[in-house]
This record gives sequence, structure tokens and C-alpha cells, in this order.
Amino acid sequence: MKFSLNWQVGYCNSVNSRPEEYFSATVPSAVQLDYAKEYNLPDYREGVNFKDYQWMQEKFWVYTTEFFNSSISEKAKLFLVAKGIDYEYDIYANGEKVFSYEGIYKTAKVDLTHLKNTKIKLEIVIHPAPKCDFDDVFPGTRSEAKQSCKPAVNYGWDFHPRLIALGICDEIYLEATEHTPLNPLVTYTLNNERTRATVFMEAGCKKVKSWTLTDPDGNIVFIGSGESQCFSVDNPRLWWCNGYGKPELYTWQLEIENLGASEFYYGKIGFRTVELTTNDGAVQDLYGIYPKTRTAPPITVTLNGVKIFAKGSNWVAPEVFYGIINRNRSEEMLQLVKNCNMNILRFWGGAVVNKDFFYDVCDELGILVWQEFPLACNNYVATKKYLEVLESEATAIINRLRVHPSLCMWCGGNELFNEWSGMNDQSLALRLLNKLTLELTPEIPFIPTSPLMGMAHGHYRFLYEDGREVIEVMQKVKHTAYTEFGVSSISNLDCLLKIANKEHFFPLEPDDITIAHHAFKAWGDGAHAWVKTIEKYFPNIESIEELIEKSQLIQSVGLQFIYEEARRQKPYCSMALAWCFDEPWPCVANNSIICYPNSVKPGYYAVKSACRDVLASGRIRKFSYKAGEEFDFDLFLLNDSNKQVLDGVVSAYIQIGNGEKVHLIDWQYKNVQVNKNVAGPTVRCILPNVSNAQEMKLILESGAYSSEYTMLYEPEQVKVKQIKKLNE
Amino acid sequence: MKFSLNWQVGYCNSVNSRPEEYFSATVPSAVQLDYAKEYNLPDYREGVNFKDYQWMQEKFWVYTTEFFNSSISEKAKLFLVAKGIDYEYDIYANGEKVFSYEGIYKTAKVDLTHLKNTKIKLEIVIHPAPKCDFDDVFPGTRSEAKQSCKPAVNYGWDFHPRLIALGICDEIYLEATEHTPLNPLVTYTLNNERTRATVFMEAGCKKVKSWTLTDPDGNIVFIGSGESQCFSVDNPRLWWCNGYGKPELYTWQLEIENLGASEFYYGKIGFRTVELTTNDGAVQDLYGIYPKTRTAPPITVTLNGVKIFAKGSNWVAPEVFYGIINRNRSEEMLQLVKNCNMNILRFWGGAVVNKDFFYDVCDELGILVWQEFPLACNNYVATKKYLEVLESEATAIINRLRVHPSLCMWCGGNELFNEWSGMNDQSLALRLLNKLTLELTPEIPFIPTSPLMGMAHGHYRFLYEDGREVIEVMQKVKHTAYTEFGVSSISNLDCLLKIANKEHFFPLEPDDITIAHHAFKAWGDGAHAWVKTIEKYFPNIESIEELIEKSQLIQSVGLQFIYEEARRQKPYCSMALAWCFDEPWPCVANNSIICYPNSVKPGYYAVKSACRDVLASGRIRKFSYKAGEEFDFDLFLLNDSNKQVLDGVVSAYIQIGNGEKVHLIDWQYKNVQVNKNVAGPTVRCILPNVSNAQEMKLILESGAYSSEYTMLYEPEQVKVKQIKKLNE
Repeated sequence: MKFSLNWQVGYCNSVNSRPEEYFSATVPSAVQLDYAKEYNLPDYREGVNFKDYQWMQEKFWVYTTEFFNSSISEKAKLFLVAKGIDYEYDIYANGEKVFSYEGIYKTAKVDLTHLKNTKIKLEIVIHPAPKCDFDDVFPGTRSEAKQSCKPAVNYGWDFHPRLIALGICDEIYLEATEHTPLNPLVTYTLNNERTRATVFMEAGCKKVKSWTLTDPDGNIVFIGSGESQCFSVDNPRLWWCNGYGKPELYTWQLEIENLGASEFYYGKIGFRTVELTTNDGAVQDLYGIYPKTRTAPPITVTLNGVKIFAKGSNWVAPEVFYGIINRNRSEEMLQLVKNCNMNILRFWGGAVVNKDFFYDVCDELGILVWQEFPLACNNYVATKKYLEVLESEATAIINRLRVHPSLCMWCGGNELFNEWSGMNDQSLALRLLNKLTLELTPEIPFIPTSPLMGMAHGHYRFLYEDGREVIEVMQKVKHTAYTEFGVSSISNLDCLLKIANKEHFFPLEPDDITIAHHAFKAWGDGAHAWVKTIEKYFPNIESIEELIEKSQLIQSVGLQFIYEEARRQKPYCSMALAWCFDEPWPCVANNSIICYPNSVKPGYYAVKSACRDVLASGRIRKFSYKAGEEFDFDLFLLNDSNKQVLDGVVSAYIQIGNGEKVHLIDWQYKNVQVNKNVAGPTVRCILPNVSNAQEMKLILESGAYSSEYTMLYEPEQVKVKQIKKLNE
Repeated sequence: MKFSLNWQVGYCNSVNSRPEEYFSATVPSAVQLDYAKEYNLPDYREGVNFKDYQWMQEKFWVYTTEFFNSSISEKAKLFLVAKGIDYEYDIYANGEKVFSYEGIYKTAKVDLTHLKNTKIKLEIVIHPAPKCDFDDVFPGTRSEAKQSCKPAVNYGWDFHPRLIALGICDEIYLEATEHTPLNPLVTYTLNNERTRATVFMEAGCKKVKSWTLTDPDGNIVFIGSGESQCFSVDNPRLWWCNGYGKPELYTWQLEIENLGASEFYYGKIGFRTVELTTNDGAVQDLYGIYPKTRTAPPITVTLNGVKIFAKGSNWVAPEVFYGIINRNRSEEMLQLVKNCNMNILRFWGGAVVNKDFFYDVCDELGILVWQEFPLACNNYVATKKYLEVLESEATAIINRLRVHPSLCMWCGGNELFNEWSGMNDQSLALRLLNKLTLELTPEIPFIPTSPLMGMAHGHYRFLYEDGREVIEVMQKVKHTAYTEFGVSSISNLDCLLKIANKEHFFPLEPDDITIAHHAFKAWGDGAHAWVKTIEKYFPNIESIEELIEKSQLIQSVGLQFIYEEARRQKPYCSMALAWCFDEPWPCVANNSIICYPNSVKPGYYAVKSACRDVLASGRIRKFSYKAGEEFDFDLFLLNDSNKQVLDGVVSAYIQIGNGEKVHLIDWQYKNVQVNKNVAGPTVRCILPNVSNAQEMKLILESGAYSSEYTMLYEPEQVKVKQIKKLNE
């Protein structure tokens, strides 16, 4: 029997003092939002109001509540159960400290049975946000996060204000039970052929009335009883990710006796195997080369023995105060991910680890999960205290997530082997994570960080410092996985209007607000609005609407190209993950394809198109052309699906401005096998002059596989009047 | 009280039968040597006699002995202690099976107390050599070793016959004791400044009379008592490797009471910290590059905070039947290593792990140890049984070696991430080794295999398939560590004569014997004699003596160049380990610089010269020159020492044939800082014609730092009569 609690909260300046006043707290949420509501603080998402919230992360906060219930059974024990309190805290019951912990992810189960028949006053003292104070720390930056499991992004990032959430961020309740609060565990192994699953059920208490397992249609597969169970399921229906099959889920139910009544627990199983296998071609890379180094680490997600092209995105918590994210919000956003034809999300190590229901939704939608531990872009030095906190928090994360079929890999954290971090393969924190994941989930791959050898992050701009476009760069590089890449755009107008009024944004210039919301100096001076880049291609922009439109066109073109190019490099390349899907507050400009809270940018549709299972694809050379110039592109039919594509035709057309669609070629593709690409011809033509035209489109018509590419066009006085087809 | 035992041995065909006859066994050794002695088999090292030994590895072997001693104290327990039995075995006492194990490295401690006052008949049944029978195994090759911890080299290698040692290979005795047989453990931690050691002593029994610790001069540092002790040593004298300081060793002594008498245990401590740190320049490699991958893994051995240039060699067991190797033999060979100016040995994963005394000698001589686990060139698939054996054996290896200050790194095994093995970062065997080493020795680095990204193995020939010389290749590549490279030579004549009579070897051609002893087809057709390479440079060879001489010249020139070039690439490169120092039986030709058993090749002296702390070094371009050609080289002063080298002069001369030494340049080097190289000028000259000369030497005179380089010279009719110094 669970009892919910009504909490009040207030702040004070030391661990032993208590607030002068308390006010109503929303749980789960964050102390900052409670305070803002009580004192009518202006919205932190508007202007630079967030600065008025920053003092709060330096305070001690005390939650308090009282509980009395005289009708709790004599046989019952009484526990306070807290699934997430952020970050370092002590729990007091009637003035006595009963629990202390540092970390967000471990469920606190505090035995209060000795106080069962009294009035219980609970106090939870939240310490100020942790800040590492080593000599090499730059105050006010993410480096303050490097001795804790706090999300590093809280300390300020190129898309996140410096706001460090504190408070009760997940469920909390009192539980009267004759057992210790239960976490029944249901796991399985599959035989090599995946034709037989052996299921293990552990109730964690002796008074089990029944276990049942039902298949995805609701048919009962197994009924049994006992504290634990082990049984086989023949020919289980397998869990597949989006695009490769149904995410089949079985349901288990546990009925126990608790204080004379039945109590039920439920959960899902998805039967599947997941591996990281060596990318095709990575071995051949080294044939005959001496002195010889090693092959690139495996990064091809292999689900139920099938090599998947992992198409997806990086993901960050969609709220600064992530305690408020609920299941509905998660479903809404993850449905956008699925609809975008993605099959994987990388839960980035700089962000908070999502709540359990989030992974439930991933399980249901068939979205694979790359889960990182809370390390990012720092050197997390292996002090004894840090390793203890990390071990406890990582163990909690592993135990919470291990039951989700969507979980396809663990990763130590973000960019830890890059120059700005300075960790390496010998770092004890990463060796510890390798050890813990091996012990608890040997069936799940582990990588220490991203990128590894052969993988790559970036770039995060359409136009490089040296004048090259990402379109040119991408087709010249060769990586096993592009696990971060971004092309930014300015946000939709509705998002900008959450920040300031419309007039503030045109001309778009660096000021307190636009810098705070990442339009400028997010990393380089121009990031993320890159106004000079937009103006290079579109010199005469006259309104914010037009600036947004052109910026978003550049993002769409860039992302479409990168995703398709990564796919064209299959099977050497096996993964494409953009930075980033979403954002935690309204950015003026960002690499996301969803504006806060979830307003879709045009880039979303470009990605959705590029991530279709099967599509005709054109590898163009650059974004901007002139009349008289040769225009050429490579044709491909990309097939990531588990189906052979029937022979067919791709008809390529070029359309300049509003002119006629001129036919360039009919390519008859054949032998498009399961999960294989087919390269077609390279097509060339000389661009004619079409006065007043500013855009041109490459149109590939092929039924459901049709694609379209937008480029810029500049007319001039040239002699060519008609398209000349060079390869006829 | 220990009782040694006299063993007999015989063979049979099944696990439950017993030999028809027994004969005397030498312990420790191998059953094959016992049988050969008993039946006067011809020496397996001669000709192809080894083939007559191969049937033995397919049999069951039974050791037997009897023991009776009625005077063992009533208080005593009686144990059979076996430090190494090779490989799978069962121990019977008076007909009852009392112990079974698979593996070489775990000490068996079998309690026989219940038989104390009876006559005890001991039988040790050794199973046939393990052979993996997976579908992908090629019978008769190393792939049969891929589910066991047997040295893979036993199954046949390019320098090792297919002979699989079996039998008692380390100490074995009965011990009467009131305790369980003890392994007192003495460990320590050092503070960050290395100015204070905290020493932990664990006796493992309660009856401790005293602990003492004495410093390297024999002065007592600590006296205490108790089952365990923890105390500090201020300003401990640190253990250094060869060339960087003294390998200072403290001695501990434990006195316990055992059956009414004093019993003493002894051991050494060397205080030091060891890390692998990121190679200088590896980070800069990635500056500004997008898409961006990761920096190369750290491979700079850093001892007591000092970055070491690790100069050394790979090492293989110097005997096929490694059970016979004793401390004297180890000392003799390791002294050769030290005298060669080496500071590190890589104990290669294909070979047996050395016995404890071997590491004692490494500790005493200051030779760093790179220790691999017994995996090499196979895909060790993670079956449950294999992982259990590996965990047990690896744990035993770690616990045995962890106390040695010479131990500087663990490595999972050899070339496991190369195309011929097919393991990768996800392989559970390697993740398990990471876990075990982290748990037991977090202070010691672990790498999963060699080579890793940035490191390299090979090549193993002077002249590449494509006609390039290793001299050319080496100066164009860039690696963080050259952890295997070899240039072969034909063995010294005394070694050849162990194999066959002299006439057999000239002309040197492929036949049963020369192939079996690796002169041909060891891997490529020409390996390792490379007769065509020798004949390309020296077309008119007329005797085996001359062939050996020229072959050994090529090896000397190649190895000298590779070692020096690796050092010139410091600090990006931080390690050079040749393949290989020694060999396990007489090879006709091999990459070793010591012929079996330990006869020094000229290449040894070339390496010794190239590995001096400080030397003048010339980077030539190739091996063979003609009159009239431009000859150029880069001058360096290489300093790996921890001392600043005083400013000085290198005088470079060229000498053609027996002609005069012609002075080319005096380079006044300056600012040769601690552990730093200084690059000097590139020197060029046109080679004059010296009729009848066939060799030329570059001579760098600089006192103790002088070096000499031998090249080939071909005179012709050219106009140049005098050396023209181009850079004057």
C-alpha cells in the first residue's frame, strides 16, 4: 500500500539550519520551479531571466512533510521510497538523520517501521549543486561537473543555460508492506538460433501467488508460482526496431500476497539479441599494410543477427528542469522520432538519464537506445570518492535499464578521448564502467566513449572555416559511424517569441538575449545562427521570417546530404546520428530539428525523407551553381530494409526556378538486395541560363522512393540554351 | 615443513585406465622429456626428430608417488602443494579423486590431512593436450588452442615446432603445517608526490611473530607483529628501470610460528608508480579536423612520473618444454637483455607465463615487464567453460605477478584485433581481463591487445614484397609504438650444427629439416632465411659461413635502423620492441638476436648500440649505393637518459671500402635536454668512385656517443674523384 505525500519546500544557507519559510512543492519537479511559482518569478525561458534563478543552485533546500496513519497493519513495515532526488541529500525522520546519498539514480528505500504508529515528520535536505574545485577547474563552466554524476549540461553548454536543477525529480511515496519494497526482475537468455528463450523470474519475496507471461496478442504463455521461476519459450516472437519488424513485447505479471491482499507487478519482455559487430570493410582496410595497426572497433548494431543501419539522433533532456518530464510528453516526442524513420537514439552523457517510462515508450515504438553514463567532455579523475559515487549511480542505471529490449549499447560518456577532455583507455572511471556493465549485463555491448577509432563527431556547420561545404567534406571522408553531426538553423518564429518579441530578432545581432539563447558565441563567434553563412548564400534578406526560412533551408539541405551520404557509405559506415533531435529550452538558433518544446523545423522533414527505408538518392557536389556550369551527381538506390527491392526505374529531372522539369536520365536499377545499396550512373549536364531563377531542384522520381534536392542557382549571360546531356 | 617427492610417470589411453609401466620422472619438467630419457629417443631439437614426440601429447599421463611419514605432528594439517601442472589434470590420493583442474597457473593446495598417518599413494592424471574442435578450427594449427589457456605457440608457430608440453612444470611438494599453506601478501600505495609509501602486510595466519622491512642497504625500516600490518615509509627509495636509475628493492621478512617452530617468508618490494600516458603529439594530431575521431590510446610508459622511452624486445619461452627453465638460465638470459641496454620485455601472449623467479630477476635488473595473458592470434570465443578457465587462470597470474615492481602493464594477448584473429573490443574474454586486472591491480595499466590504434606490428623483413627496404618504410610511417618488428638472420653456425651437419646447409634450400626449423615457409615462402634477399645484395656467396655473415649483416643494419628511427620519432613514438629476443629451439633462421640456447648474433650488438641511453644517430635512406650517387642522411643526437647532455660535437665521416675516412661535417649540438632528442643538419655528398670497394661506412664520432653504419657500395666509372660536400 502506497501513500503519496504533500511536500513543502524552502531554502537556507547551511546544512544544519532550516528554512525561515516553506511553500508548496510540486513533486516530482525542481526547487527552482517551486520557488518561481511561489514568488511569481518571470519565466526563466524568456530573455535572460534565467540569471535570476542561478542563486538557487547555491542554496540548501529542505523539503518537509508530515504523515500519520494509525490504520497500518501490525505486520506491515513502513518504507520511504524515493526513485530520484537530485543531487546530494540527507533524509531526516522526526529529526533523526536516516539516510544520506549523493546521486540521482539509485532508489532510496528508507525503513521507517520504527516510527509507524507515530506522526512522522520527514525532511529532505538537498545540498547545493556539486562543484569540483580542483586547481584545473574553470569556475562557471562544465568542468565543475567533473567529480559528480550530475548532468554536465546543467553547468552550461552551447544549447543549455547554466541552470542546475535540484530537488525531488522522480516518484516518492511511503509504502506499507510486509516485504522490502520489491523490484521483481525478469530476464532471459536466447539460444544461438533465437528459437528458444529461457526466462528467469525473481520476485524478491516468498509470498508469490502467481507468475504469468502473455504473448504480444495477450495469449498466456506461462503460469507458475514460487519466489523464482525459470522456463522456456519456444519460437518467441522477437523484438525488432523501427523499420525492421514489430517491436514485439511480452507481458509478465506477478501476483504476491502482501498484508493479506493481492498485489500486482507488471513488466514487459522483448526477446532479442544485440551485438556490435565489425563494420564490413574495416578488416580489409589493413590488408598487406606493414607496420600494421588494428582494425576499427565494431560499431555495427546487429539486432537478432541482422546488421542494422542505425539511423537516428542524439537526444538531450527536453527540459532544463527534467523532473517535470512525464510519460505523455515522452510519448509525444518519441512518436516524432519514430515518424522521422529513425531507429536509434543516443542518450548523450552530458544529459540526465531518462526516467523509466521513457524507455518503456522506446520499447513500444522500436527505438534502439544507446545509453551513456553521466560523463561528458571532462576528465573525470579517479578519486576514491568519485569512483564510489559513480559505481553506485552506474549500478543503479544498469539495473533500471537492463530489462528494456530497446537498450542496445552502453557508452561511458561523450567525447572523453578528445583533446578537450583528456581521459583515455586507462582512465579508471571508464574501466569501472566496463566492469560493471560486464558483470550485470554481459549481453549488452559497452564502448568507453564516442567517438572511437574510425567513428567521428562533427562538423557542426554547413560551411567550414576554410570555405568548404559539408557536402564536399562528407563525400571525401570515410568513417564507420557518424555519431554526431549538425547543421544549425534559426528556430521557428513561435519558439523565438517565447524568448523576446519579434522586433528583437531582426536584424539578428549578438546581444545579451541572443547570445544567452545560443545564436552567437555558442562556441565559435558565429554559432549557432551563422548569419554570415546565410548572407553569403542569400545576400538580401529583409525580415526575420525570411532569415528563418533560408537558415532552415540550409539546415535541411545539409542534413539531407549527410544522412544520405552516410547511408551511401554503407556497409563501411553503419550509423548516422545527428546532433541533435531536441532542445531543453527555446534557442534562437540550434542544431536541433525540433524547437522547444516540440515544434518541428523543416529540417525534420528533410531527415525523415533521408531516413526512409528505401529511397532514390543523388550525391550532388555542392549547394550553389551558376548557369553554364557542369552539374553532376551520382545516383543510388539505398535499401536499408530487410526486403529485396524489385527492379525499377529512377527518372532524374532538373528544374531551374519555376521552369519546366527537364528529363536527364532513366536509370533502371536491378538487384537491390536486402539491406544493400546499389550505385547507379554518374549523371552530368551543363546548366542552361534561366533568367531570374534563384533555385534549382534535382528531382528523382521513383514512386515511393522519390527524392528531391534543392540547390541555389545563379543565372547569367551564357550561350547554352538547352540542357546538354553529357552521358547520352 | 615441506617434503619433496619422487615421482614416476607413464602413459595410457583413457582417463580411467592406468599405465602398464612407469618410469622415473624429473619434476619439474615435461612428460615428453621423461619418456625420451627412458627410451633414449633422439634429441627433438635435431633434424625432424620432434615428430617422434608428437604422439605423446595425445595421451593420458599418470604421475605417481608414495609418501609415508609417521612423525608429523598431531597438530599438523597435510597439504599437497603444486605450483604448476600442465594442463588439465586430476589428483588422486589412495584412489580417491581429490582435485581436478584445467590450467597451468593456479597453485593447487590439496588438503590430505585425513590421510596423514597412512601411506599415501598420489596419482596425477594429465589429460591429453586440449584441442578446440569448433567447426572453424583447422586441425594441426594454433586455432586448436582457442578455448584453453595453453600457450598457443605449442600448437606450432613460425619459430616453434608443434610440440605441446604436458606434465608437472613447477614446484610440487607436501607441506605439513598448522595453517593453510601461506602466501603472505605485501602491497603498498604511494602518495601523489611519491614521498610516502603506505605498506600493507597480510600474513594470512594469526601466529605472526614478527614482520620486518629492510631498505636496499639492509637497514631495518620497520619491525612489527600481528596478522596484518599497515605502516608508512617516508621518502622511500624508488625502483627504476635500467638506464633511469637503480632498481631499488626493499626486503620484507615474516616470521610465523608453525608447529612450534619459527618459519620464515621473504619477499621484495620496489616502490614505484607506473602509468601509460598519452603520447606527446597524439592529441595535436586531431586539432581542427572534422569529422573528428579520437586520440590514439596512451602507450608511453611513465615510471615514477617520468616518461620512459621503452626499448626492448618481445620474449618467448626459451625452451619448448618450459618446465625445465630454472633461475640460473633466466638470470643468464636476462643479464643479456640488460646488457643490451634494454629496459622492457614484452612477455608475448602466445607463450607460457614465466615462473616467479623470472620476475624476481626482472625486478633485480630493472627490466620492465609487459605481461600478456595466454591469448594469441585466435578468436577466443566466450563459451561459459572457456570464461571460467580464463577467469581462474588470469586471477592466478595476476595474484602471482602483482607484487613485482617490474610489472608495468597487462595486455589481453597478441594481435587479437587483427584480421587473422577476429576478436574485438566487445569480446567478453577481453572485457573479463579488464575487469579482473581492475579489481586486483587498479594501479597497473591494462590494454586489451597489441597493436592498438596508433601502435603497429611488423614488418618482419628487410626487403618488402614491393621492393622497398624497411629503412625507407620506417622513416615514412608514424606510430606511437613499434611493439613488434623483425629482421631475420640465419643462425650462428653452432646453432645450425645442433640441427644437422654443416653440409646440409649449403646451398640453403627448402627441405624437411630446413622447413621444420623455419628457414623456409615459416610464413611466406622465403621466411625466415630470405635467401633471395641476401643474394640480391650479395650475389656470389660461396659458403654457409658467408651466407650467415651476410644474412646477419642485413639483420644488424635493419635492426639498428629501426630502433634508432623509432627513437628519432620520440616523443610521438615511445616504444620499440623487436620481434624477438630469443627462441625456444634451434632455428635455421629466425628474427631472434639470440640463437638457441643463448648464443649471441651480431644483431644483438647492433641493437645494443642503438639502445644506448645517448648516441649520435644518422638517418640514412637505403642500404645500397653506387659511386656518383648522392648520399644524404639526417644527423641526430638521441638522449633517452634522465640527464642533460653537455654540448658537444659529432664529426661525420664516410669511409668507402678500406679507403680513408673522409670528413663530412662537424655538427656542434647544443641544448640536449633530459630525455630529449636534438635534430642536426641533413648532410649530403656525392659518392666518389673507389674501385673494388663493396661496402661503405658512415662513421659518427662523438666519444661515447659514436655510431657506425654499414652500407653496400658499388663502384663504377664516374667522373667524380673527390667527395663534394653539398652543404658547405
